[in-house]
Amino acid sequence: MSKILVVGSLGYDRISTPQGQVDQVLGGSANYFSLAASMYSEVNVVGVVGNDYKMEDKQMLTQRGVCTEGLQQVDGKTFFWEGRYEGDMNEAITVQTELNVFKDFNPALPENYRDSEFVFLANIDPILQQDVLKQVKSPKLVGVDTMNFWIQSKKQDLLKVLTQVDVLLINEGEARELTGQWNGIESAETLSALGPKAVVIKRGEYGFILYMQGEYFILPAFPIKKVVDPTGAGDTFAGGFFGFLSKLDNPLNLESLKLACVHGCLMASFTVQDFGVNPLVGLTWADIERRHADFLKVVSYH
Amino acid sequence: MSKILVVGSLGYDRISTPQGQVDQVLGGSANYFSLAASMYSEVNVVGVVGNDYKMEDKQMLTQRGVCTEGLQQVDGKTFFWEGRYEGDMNEAITVQTELNVFKDFNPALPENYRDSEFVFLANIDPILQQDVLKQVKSPKLVGVDTMNFWIQSKKQDLLKVLTQVDVLLINEGEARELTGQWNGIESAETLSALGPKAVVIKRGEYGFILYMQGEYFILPAFPIKKVVDPTGAGDTFAGGFFGFLSKLDNPLNLESLKLACVHGCLMASFTVQDFGVNPLVGLTWADIERRHADFLKVVSYH
Repeated sequence: MSKILVVGSLGYDRISTPQGQVDQVLGGSANYFSLAASMYSEVNVVGVVGNDYKMEDKQMLTQRGVCTEGLQQVDGKTFFWEGRYEGDMNEAITVQTELNVFKDFNPALPENYRDSEFVFLANIDPILQQDVLKQVKSPKLVGVDTMNFWIQSKKQDLLKVLTQVDVLLINEGEARELTGQWNGIESAETLSALGPKAVVIKRGEYGFILYMQGEYFILPAFPIKKVVDPTGAGDTFAGGFFGFLSKLDNPLNLESLKLACVHGCLMASFTVQDFGVNPLVGLTWADIERRHADFLKVVSYH
Repeated sequence: MSKILVVGSLGYDRISTPQGQVDQVLGGSANYFSLAASMYSEVNVVGVVGNDYKMEDKQMLTQRGVCTEGLQQVDGKTFFWEGRYEGDMNEAITVQTELNVFKDFNPALPENYRDSEFVFLANIDPILQQDVLKQVKSPKLVGVDTMNFWIQSKKQDLLKVLTQVDVLLINEGEARELTGQWNGIESAETLSALGPKAVVIKRGEYGFILYMQGEYFILPAFPIKKVVDPTGAGDTFAGGFFGFLSKLDNPLNLESLKLACVHGCLMASFTVQDFGVNPLVGLTWADIERRHADFLKVVSYH
């Protein structure tokens, strides 16, 4: 079984959506990613938490087989994010971000993480993403995500990271911001020209665009009538995507990436059905297989 | 071969998009619909034009086998619409609308139109849509489209029309306005509860949602890198949709409607590639078949 390395945020969130509000719920890109990817393979997580980080939240990861040796616990408060959604559930409105212990985060990989074959650089400072890349030996596949904050503040560092990765996974809004192009097809090609062999544009309820070497694969999200909380949908998409690929000998080709995107969609579809990481905690393989059968019915014709 | 009846607008447009501007180009829902649907079956058009309507524009329809006997030419100016698109090519911004001869339009069906088996009530006053329905004998399938103007000004008349039709085809923005629900899945079910057996929500580059009796079929639009002018995409979607269904013995079931939506997508994908009706004029069956093969590659996996 391959090992997947993820570096990203672990934190506590305050979330408000038309369906209700929650406070101090477990969040962060590395958490969402790990809970999704660990359905498929062993996950090694790299990140930082403060002394308010709850033991039970760490145990939730270890119970899923996630190795938390790379999780630094330091003096201070854990990363905190407050967001809300109004009407358009595809786009979060950030109310406040407290970086806290994340401000001085310096990712150091435990020795046994360095041979991870799959590496996902979740949305963090592109300089830290580069630091992590330098520490891994010879990964089979490297993926990266980012957000508007880094596009605006560290564009040159981000562009350098893009020359070093195989797959870019990015939100539609952020793809538009990075390329200056509204059209998803045009911006996918532009992003690909920046370095990544494959580009996945995540479009919320509209699904995704996969672009690789002149070929497109585009599907909608699985239809969910009552979206409770979209937080983490993009990170669990990445988790399903890398999780699926980590089980393959030859992950970097169009047919593999197509199925990886479908698995990303399936995992994201669970995430949005309840607040925080709740829907991922009790998830089984039977749930995933049932949803995949339902998804096929929604997108197939003859 | 079945006959398709369409009632809607015929007019001249002034259009501005990031790709350029055109003025006095042929437009109107009935024009776009007829040019698309006539690729499949015989089309009977009902509408009104002024004395500035050009003979060559009528000939363009008759050359495609469209019967224009139901086209009233009256004293006055033809319907005129001016719109522009900025960035988001899924949504037109109306600059001005001159109803002109359309203001006093009273649709009267020629005798040989009354046995049309397929009826499409394009976006016009819902009272006129009802007038047309009263004049047809026993149609096999009736579809309707509408727009925000009628949702705001004649909601009760529109709701009455919805109880009399088989299929509602509606833009995403207008579905949201009519139901007050942002989520496409939720609003499709709400719209279906208003009467139509099937609901198709058109989502521009994001494709469509088809909902019928608890079943969903959702696909994206065919990827077009350079969208020149989205005007008429929705009406040609309807044209491909009804055109395809008109060739079937049993059009009103899920499998038929799925393929009809795909044909709607294909026709719309041609429309957006150039200004006005230009892309539809020289279109061949070979073009449609080639695009269908390409579309299948974009949305299929195994």
